[in-house]
Amino acid sequence: MDYTKLQQVRQWTVDNHVDVTYVSDFHTISYLTGFGSDPIERTLALFVFAEDEPFLFAPALEVEAIKGTGWPYRVYGYLDHEDPYALIAQHIQEQLTDPKVWALEQGNLTLDRFNAIKTQFPAAHFDKNLSPMIQQLRLVKTPDELEKLHVAGKWADFAFEKGFAAVKAGRTEQQVAAELQYALMQKGVMEMSFGTLIQAGAHAAEPHGATNQTKIKPNELVLFDLGVMWEGYASDASRTIAYGQPTDKQKEIYDVCLEAQLTAQAGVKPGMAAEDVDKLARDVITKAGYGEYFIHRLGHGLGQTDHEFPSIMEGNHMPLVEGMCFSIEPGIYIPGVAGVRIEDCGVVTKIGFDPFTHTPKDLKILDI
Amino acid sequence: MDYTKLQQVRQWTVDNHVDVTYVSDFHTISYLTGFGSDPIERTLALFVFAEDEPFLFAPALEVEAIKGTGWPYRVYGYLDHEDPYALIAQHIQEQLTDPKVWALEQGNLTLDRFNAIKTQFPAAHFDKNLSPMIQQLRLVKTPDELEKLHVAGKWADFAFEKGFAAVKAGRTEQQVAAELQYALMQKGVMEMSFGTLIQAGAHAAEPHGATNQTKIKPNELVLFDLGVMWEGYASDASRTIAYGQPTDKQKEIYDVCLEAQLTAQAGVKPGMAAEDVDKLARDVITKAGYGEYFIHRLGHGLGQTDHEFPSIMEGNHMPLVEGMCFSIEPGIYIPGVAGVRIEDCGVVTKIGFDPFTHTPKDLKILDI
Repeated sequence: MDYTKLQQVRQWTVDNHVDVTYVSDFHTISYLTGFGSDPIERTLALFVFAEDEPFLFAPALEVEAIKGTGWPYRVYGYLDHEDPYALIAQHIQEQLTDPKVWALEQGNLTLDRFNAIKTQFPAAHFDKNLSPMIQQLRLVKTPDELEKLHVAGKWADFAFEKGFAAVKAGRTEQQVAAELQYALMQKGVMEMSFGTLIQAGAHAAEPHGATNQTKIKPNELVLFDLGVMWEGYASDASRTIAYGQPTDKQKEIYDVCLEAQLTAQAGVKPGMAAEDVDKLARDVITKAGYGEYFIHRLGHGLGQTDHEFPSIMEGNHMPLVEGMCFSIEPGIYIPGVAGVRIEDCGVVTKIGFDPFTHTPKDLKILDI
Repeated sequence: MDYTKLQQVRQWTVDNHVDVTYVSDFHTISYLTGFGSDPIERTLALFVFAEDEPFLFAPALEVEAIKGTGWPYRVYGYLDHEDPYALIAQHIQEQLTDPKVWALEQGNLTLDRFNAIKTQFPAAHFDKNLSPMIQQLRLVKTPDELEKLHVAGKWADFAFEKGFAAVKAGRTEQQVAAELQYALMQKGVMEMSFGTLIQAGAHAAEPHGATNQTKIKPNELVLFDLGVMWEGYASDASRTIAYGQPTDKQKEIYDVCLEAQLTAQAGVKPGMAAEDVDKLARDVITKAGYGEYFIHRLGHGLGQTDHEFPSIMEGNHMPLVEGMCFSIEPGIYIPGVAGVRIEDCGVVTKIGFDPFTHTPKDLKILDI
């Protein structure tokens, strides 16, 4: 860990005439310090100063683990019965008796924690917002991050392979999910990036439905949407396959969705607006007459989580930059009939888009 | 769903002279409406009015699912490219042109969302806090909730059985976790309430360590900490077993920890302070000379998540009330030697404490 990003936050603190920057999102803390842990209801915080070295504040149970990462600055622990914000105030005042200007992660900090820190520093100003700067930093991935995203993608490909092999008539969606997750766990991949989604037949037309006891029947389409966590980075990909010969209608929907996905993926270039990638896919689907059945944005950012910036949708004029990572996932959902979604996540490169997943996208037809 | 709890929130709104109560935590929304969904970065909100019926505001994708729960009031959807807070303001102003007094969930609402709503209603007051009232409501479980918690506990017992059977020399902690999670998934239990923790030998002395590739060796203690989600409710339990004959030292630590757990569990009575349950267990461990190795609170609340109120720790004077649910989980962690934790979650009854898990707690010794 070279703490370059942390130095950038310190520089931002200096440039914005901020005395104390309070980092509260555990994803951001992991990103800046290399120490990744969800404190749930406990308090984990990073304080960055214009005029001094940063410190971490953590549950006492975590202090040794933080030191173990090689963290070269101070770390303070607190016990469950102690008031974390009173202790934080003490530690800050040891070096800065009267910090006036604070920056907060407004996209993460809850009102009660804000009130707790305000109570300790009643005369301070808290209007500066660190969140947009962190968003901006996290938008463009480093080579080290991209390597992890590629590995996370490889495990998603592995999961598709195992999942497709597990599809059999009479098996439930949940049983297929169980098989592919078990195969991953046997390889030491213990955490999915979200609940594995497997939906068969008409069930796949509910894009926010859950994997359930629906039995897979011959001559249905089966939608897979899955991803894993790998060293703190997420994968996320979707494939739709046919179990037995698809009907003409199923094939038609699939072909339109695939054309939309491939068109968008081939069209990505640095400098274009995020919303124009959405438009590339949406135009294909609309032209084919299925526009009303494509009821969500084309994609979302990906990195430490499977839902971050940039959002690939109408209204987002953000120009794409090399190193931005996101999903391209058009879907067509016809209630009561079938649902198709095809998704790769990848990174914007100098010349286009490099996907993290490589499972073939031509319609796979499984023998019954 | 009889919406009794929702009526209580409305009554609270009336009693506190609040015009609009904004519920933002998806757990609370699930609790009050029966619709459970994590919107991640999207907006899911419930608005409760003193003078009118409540409404839900959700991503358009979720609207049908909400109606499907039988929700008898209004629900409004929004599309990804729309500004949710502008729409929320419109819907509110259709019935209440100038709401002055708002209540927020300060324990959940982030500063940026607070700013978004404040921008729509610049003249309003936002000082009322709904969070303590919701905490209070959620603290005491209904018979329906207790039934789900008992079932979630049964699945944790099932997982222990499968996990203990999977322990073999040379197997890694992760492989054992894989086996028990696979057994659960085959039964349709798809979601753990937290990452399964299995730690062998000295690794178990790191109470916040993670399940990893550590191989299980004969004559070690192996710590299991696990739980599942069942119909929106969590289980959480820990057992420590011996793989092969334990040493005298291992047996001694185990016996002290077990005595602490049983003493606390037997001592729970309605009316006693939460901190006194902690003290019951802590005194046993301190008296045996291991006080410095019991480095966390005795327990935490349990319900829709595995970390909620009440906290069973020094300094919490809250009197226990029938229907409160929490863990009793003393631990002794001797760095480099071994770690033991024994945990049941349960509910305070008229006469004591009724655990959700029933896996025996006498030291189980597996044949090598």
